[in-house]
Amino acid sequence: MHTSTTAPTFADIETAHERVKPYIHRTPILTSGILNERTGAELFFKCENFQKVGAFKARGAFNAVFSLSDEAAANGVVTHSSGNHAAALALAARTRGIPAHIVMPDNSPDIKKAAVKSYGANIIFCGPTQHDRETAANEVLQRTNAAFVHPYDDARIIAGQGTCAKETLEDAPNLDFIMAPVSGGGLLGGTALAATSMSKTIKVIGCEPEEADDAFRSFRDGVRYPAITPPRTIADGLRTSLGELNFLIIRECVSEIHTVSEQAIIGAMRTVWEILKIIIEPSCAVPLAVILEQKLDVRGKRVGIILSGGNVDLNKLPWQ
Amino acid sequence: MHTSTTAPTFADIETAHERVKPYIHRTPILTSGILNERTGAELFFKCENFQKVGAFKARGAFNAVFSLSDEAAANGVVTHSSGNHAAALALAARTRGIPAHIVMPDNSPDIKKAAVKSYGANIIFCGPTQHDRETAANEVLQRTNAAFVHPYDDARIIAGQGTCAKETLEDAPNLDFIMAPVSGGGLLGGTALAATSMSKTIKVIGCEPEEADDAFRSFRDGVRYPAITPPRTIADGLRTSLGELNFLIIRECVSEIHTVSEQAIIGAMRTVWEILKIIIEPSCAVPLAVILEQKLDVRGKRVGIILSGGNVDLNKLPWQ
Repeated sequence: MHTSTTAPTFADIETAHERVKPYIHRTPILTSGILNERTGAELFFKCENFQKVGAFKARGAFNAVFSLSDEAAANGVVTHSSGNHAAALALAARTRGIPAHIVMPDNSPDIKKAAVKSYGANIIFCGPTQHDRETAANEVLQRTNAAFVHPYDDARIIAGQGTCAKETLEDAPNLDFIMAPVSGGGLLGGTALAATSMSKTIKVIGCEPEEADDAFRSFRDGVRYPAITPPRTIADGLRTSLGELNFLIIRECVSEIHTVSEQAIIGAMRTVWEILKIIIEPSCAVPLAVILEQKLDVRGKRVGIILSGGNVDLNKLPWQ
Repeated sequence: MHTSTTAPTFADIETAHERVKPYIHRTPILTSGILNERTGAELFFKCENFQKVGAFKARGAFNAVFSLSDEAAANGVVTHSSGNHAAALALAARTRGIPAHIVMPDNSPDIKKAAVKSYGANIIFCGPTQHDRETAANEVLQRTNAAFVHPYDDARIIAGQGTCAKETLEDAPNLDFIMAPVSGGGLLGGTALAATSMSKTIKVIGCEPEEADDAFRSFRDGVRYPAITPPRTIADGLRTSLGELNFLIIRECVSEIHTVSEQAIIGAMRTVWEILKIIIEPSCAVPLAVILEQKLDVRGKRVGIILSGGNVDLNKLPWQ
């Protein structure tokens, strides 16, 4: 179940940016002398943890909801999501004044369930697998005739997420690398389209947990594999499988995909908390883990790192 | 033991600002739609948790170290501090290339001990009371002839800390209130001098834990009381007693001092972590706790809040 078969273009990302600007934050880019010294690179951290709903997902969701015709919008929107896309779609729908029906796995973090509820969405709980989600979402779709907005395998979503890399390159030009985590591929796909359109020399690097390495294997073999079910990674935002449209874009525009261990992810997350003094969720720490584990040689390079979100259950920190 | 008897003027704060600018960050001011909605005010959070050494203390320390003559500086500097001033003085001394001797209570948080060590300072451990600290510092002073830089009862330190409020009012003008935590009174004193010099209408609000309420009682009665020994507050940066020079300034320029419970401090700290997605230490949360506990009516007002630091031991979070 996906909702578009054609990849967006950079013009779609520019249109998306104009459409979502009134609703989203232009998030800051942080730098750290200590981390630059430690890595030998110049690192630029794009802080989507400060974004509306605490994650980049606000970009795609606002783009999708505000690109619907009034007629289509009236029936509301429906999606399935492990959390941040759900909260983002709920907020975008509330902002437009239309209903949102959200299918969520019942093992989603409490903080993410609470966020979706607080935006007034109708939640439908389901099991943890991709199949469980899609079955439940289909049932809602039949019943409500709402517009389905897939969390990543959707051109409107990919174009929206691409606005994050666009801002990063506008505010920190001449990057050698731009790094983003990959799960379904909405963020990495949008990042790759924006970055390779704005720079002829930039390399786009996907970063993934070893425990959920379907994008790494798919990219290596040229075949789209499903994710291991259920993935055991702590990075709860990175447990879904690479989308079809996303895979097409990633094969075309991404240079490398690297994987890291759970321990490396937790260590990188803690490093960001301690040194940058900001809250990021585990999924967010994967690109820095790739650097700290020396999977990618960044010495002497200018590197953009998309910190994708900051929604963490503060009662369950991974180093405890 | 304090090192000056005359309060600084706003001109001293301006001079301090020019002196420290090359070495410190001009920290950002964050705002939050959710917190504005919840409080009915417009809140402006000045993020000194992003400052060098993770706290506003860098401002006073750099001002003190770089205002020494070359001759005086050559013998190094000495201080006693529960942590952030120690790290700040160590960094400022290393930056100027002179020795730093730091007397620290042996119950200081590990993260603060490690920070001081990492800046190459010579650490002398002592007991938890004010008397223990002063005895140990005096001994070092006799031995080394270093320049003593008191953590707060010092005109150079107060002027340096005042640069934080100066930046806040430059970047968020027309504030009705500016709020800061108070312990020794370096930050609150500097804030009060800067704010009342820059605005005729602003009210300066000191914020203190109930468990370490010497500034509240001193301000109310017009008599400088020592802190309860040893104070039981979780706000480890707010355990020392109000300084003499600081008390003079605070009596003159501060409008109100409010106190809050430990539970309110922990709740406000968690609120900042969850909503602003930034790491602040418990001391830092006291002003927001005053607002959330409705000790001060901020409805319809523009309120500057100085978030003083972000050095927390991530293995020991107060809500666990």
